[in-house]
Amino acid sequence: MNEIIKPQACNFIIFGIKGDLSKRKLLPALYYLEKKKNIHNDTNIIGISRSKCNIKDNINIIKKSLLNFLEEKINNEVWLKFSARFKFYNLDVYNNNNFIKLKKINLKNKNIIYYFATPPSTFSYICEGLGKNKMNTKNTRIIIEKPLGENLKSYNYINKILLKYFKETQIYRIDHYLGKEIILNLLALRFSNILFFSNWNNNIIDSVQITIFEQIGIEGRTEYFNKTGQTRDMVQNHLLQILTIIAMAPPSNLNSNNISIEKIKILRSLRRIDYKNINENTVLGQYTSGVINNNNVPSYLEEICINNKSNTETFVVIKANIDNWQWFGVPFYLRTGKRIKKKIAEIVIYFKNLPFNLFNKFNKKLLQNKIIIRLYPNEGIEIKIFNKLSGLNNNYKLRSTKLNFNFYEKKNIHKCNAYELLILEAMLGNQSLFVSGNEIKESWKWIDLIINSWKKKKIKPIIYKSGTWGPKESDILIQKDGRKWNK
Amino acid sequence: MNEIIKPQACNFIIFGIKGDLSKRKLLPALYYLEKKKNIHNDTNIIGISRSKCNIKDNINIIKKSLLNFLEEKINNEVWLKFSARFKFYNLDVYNNNNFIKLKKINLKNKNIIYYFATPPSTFSYICEGLGKNKMNTKNTRIIIEKPLGENLKSYNYINKILLKYFKETQIYRIDHYLGKEIILNLLALRFSNILFFSNWNNNIIDSVQITIFEQIGIEGRTEYFNKTGQTRDMVQNHLLQILTIIAMAPPSNLNSNNISIEKIKILRSLRRIDYKNINENTVLGQYTSGVINNNNVPSYLEEICINNKSNTETFVVIKANIDNWQWFGVPFYLRTGKRIKKKIAEIVIYFKNLPFNLFNKFNKKLLQNKIIIRLYPNEGIEIKIFNKLSGLNNNYKLRSTKLNFNFYEKKNIHKCNAYELLILEAMLGNQSLFVSGNEIKESWKWIDLIINSWKKKKIKPIIYKSGTWGPKESDILIQKDGRKWNK
Repeated sequence: MNEIIKPQACNFIIFGIKGDLSKRKLLPALYYLEKKKNIHNDTNIIGISRSKCNIKDNINIIKKSLLNFLEEKINNEVWLKFSARFKFYNLDVYNNNNFIKLKKINLKNKNIIYYFATPPSTFSYICEGLGKNKMNTKNTRIIIEKPLGENLKSYNYINKILLKYFKETQIYRIDHYLGKEIILNLLALRFSNILFFSNWNNNIIDSVQITIFEQIGIEGRTEYFNKTGQTRDMVQNHLLQILTIIAMAPPSNLNSNNISIEKIKILRSLRRIDYKNINENTVLGQYTSGVINNNNVPSYLEEICINNKSNTETFVVIKANIDNWQWFGVPFYLRTGKRIKKKIAEIVIYFKNLPFNLFNKFNKKLLQNKIIIRLYPNEGIEIKIFNKLSGLNNNYKLRSTKLNFNFYEKKNIHKCNAYELLILEAMLGNQSLFVSGNEIKESWKWIDLIINSWKKKKIKPIIYKSGTWGPKESDILIQKDGRKWNK
Repeated sequence: MNEIIKPQACNFIIFGIKGDLSKRKLLPALYYLEKKKNIHNDTNIIGISRSKCNIKDNINIIKKSLLNFLEEKINNEVWLKFSARFKFYNLDVYNNNNFIKLKKINLKNKNIIYYFATPPSTFSYICEGLGKNKMNTKNTRIIIEKPLGENLKSYNYINKILLKYFKETQIYRIDHYLGKEIILNLLALRFSNILFFSNWNNNIIDSVQITIFEQIGIEGRTEYFNKTGQTRDMVQNHLLQILTIIAMAPPSNLNSNNISIEKIKILRSLRRIDYKNINENTVLGQYTSGVINNNNVPSYLEEICINNKSNTETFVVIKANIDNWQWFGVPFYLRTGKRIKKKIAEIVIYFKNLPFNLFNKFNKKLLQNKIIIRLYPNEGIEIKIFNKLSGLNNNYKLRSTKLNFNFYEKKNIHKCNAYELLILEAMLGNQSLFVSGNEIKESWKWIDLIINSWKKKKIKPIIYKSGTWGPKESDILIQKDGRKWNK
């Protein structure tokens, strides 16, 4: 049996306990941790919200969240233990003095974790409220999440306030993709198998594709999304984080700082995309109405309702190049969009063609190995290998075989989700799965230049029909390189 | 659908139609080829034996062989077509004049294939009989099989007679291991996957183990085996052929001559094992009585009954080194024996340890990828890869996963056996799966030196109990190198 990891007792304080993030992600994750006995008996969960409410109503809200968002029925025993951990405070985060209320719970000699499950505009007020009331002591940690700014400047502003009251070692910036089992496995795959390790460079790898496609639109986030766009919302964080994990050199050890150093080296090696090369390296799109899963879906402009004009992209392709010794010449094609035909999240590593097709008499086409790291659908890792067709009549006719990793030892076990893992890691005080401030800074630098170049060159998104694979210019971009998107 | 390969019509003449090889291997293989429609309508099969017999009795012998050795029931339709192809001649191969009888069938304008399914001592007589009667015309091919000599000298003698009457391009020397699906797949695996191709050298590969273990003893081949021993019987041909297929550089193309050139280069690069280094590079064994699968089995000496003394080895380990740029420093451990605990035939490619164990906090041991190419049991290819254990409580605890190749598209299909394939290839006139004369010559050179060194140093086989893994000196040999046998 595996030993159960149990962090020290803490006060786990959630700002915005009634918000969407809490309901959908944090409360279910905490419940699962409770069920797996990963929470210390003396840990309390403290819910903060603006509105006043009695404890019974609050507990009911918690229970309702679980009923809605748990993947299984609530276990009564677990619920009794879980619900007994809760305390609630109402507090206006814009008012420093309000924070005094919290002080009594914090006096105990425990670790304190503040989870800012509130809009980023509140972060500075929460920090100040905690700081001015001396609740930012050494034993405290904060967890925050995207969006962390909308460019380098606004990120620096946020970061400056965070760092005014907390040290970098106290700040846990979540990118939930880093908590996904399969992304963690990517590190294991790369750094524990010499078969892959020795092949992980521009001698053998041809190109990499990272795709995150959604079928949904902007889901009511009208104002926010129209100001932000797909690039800031998805590429600056998730896609670039995945890129660094694929491309980073082996860290000296698994400490967060050493991992971050290697990720930053990759981000700093990204070739600048500016007004001179923006056209050949990017494609923007915006969806119009269409059909997805037999349902009519509205256009982006209909969805935003604000006005009848928007240059916000809902689809983006960026061809990234890493100018270092390991990766020079290996394009990383980043691609993400909304209202796409299918929901897909995958990384595809294409290996080079063999220098020579020995079996050309039987197989006209050159053969290309690839590794597919699939987050959705059917989480798993596949390796495409060629072997000989069996039987007499095929001679050296080759066929491709998929080698599948068997990820989960048992079927139907609850798969550990990203928030569970990341919350547990924060409770343990382990930052290695979180994003450092400097990584975000470097990401914004690179993204800012791209976004500014679009403006400078007056590049507008190309309209694509909902339920397609995005604008055909996306295919043209990669075809120009003699490649095509994975299917 | 796959197109059916159909060779030209031929007369397929089997010397020794009533012998063990014909009954067990050739007739079933020909039947399967018939069933799969791989035999030309005008092809005849001509059975030669010393004893006179009427056609009805002969056909009955054929049918009985199929009943005994086919893996399935005889299909009546196939049988009717198959049995109609047969003609029979009785002939004393030691008498040249006897061959005249065959001339009338050979006059037709067809390819002629002579299969020498008789002891090697007859080969020269058959060649002379055919030659002196001018039945060795351009349109003829001969198929022969081991043992081809018992050392370089006796092999050269056989070969000289073959070459007196036939050209090298007419001589098809069978090593049935080369007809096995999985060995053919090894070429496909190596030369159609850059993931393996780029790793196939002493930078990444640590060592190779080739094991052929049998549970059976010498099966009545008393005199022959006691004169021959395991090294001549198994290593000189099968194990060295497998070694060359693993180690050979890519041939210019798949033509037999080009493949043979690369195999010969490997054989010529084998480091000489002579009286100076024989002790550290070889182990000999001979079985005594024991228990296998709960049955008592006799000792080798009891089995041979000839006398009470024998220095013949029934078990041998040879550590082979290939002194070329690709393989220097990568030992190939060859191991074969009789009356071993389990029947095993496998090739294991061990990759080097990773230069550094990044996950040492969670995994004490260094990790070693390996590829297992298994001929028996459970034919297939497995790759041992490491990935992260799923779930919260394991962190970077790694586990090994086996990636299995799915060899046969459908289950329960008749797997094409080696003789089917090799007979078909001979009918097609394709020599690439056969062994060239020079390969055998080089193999004998290397083996002769080893066998002579044993004699010179008076090295005797070490007694091991039947039903074990051979003498413990076998383990010690590999342990001295810091390695162990695959389990």
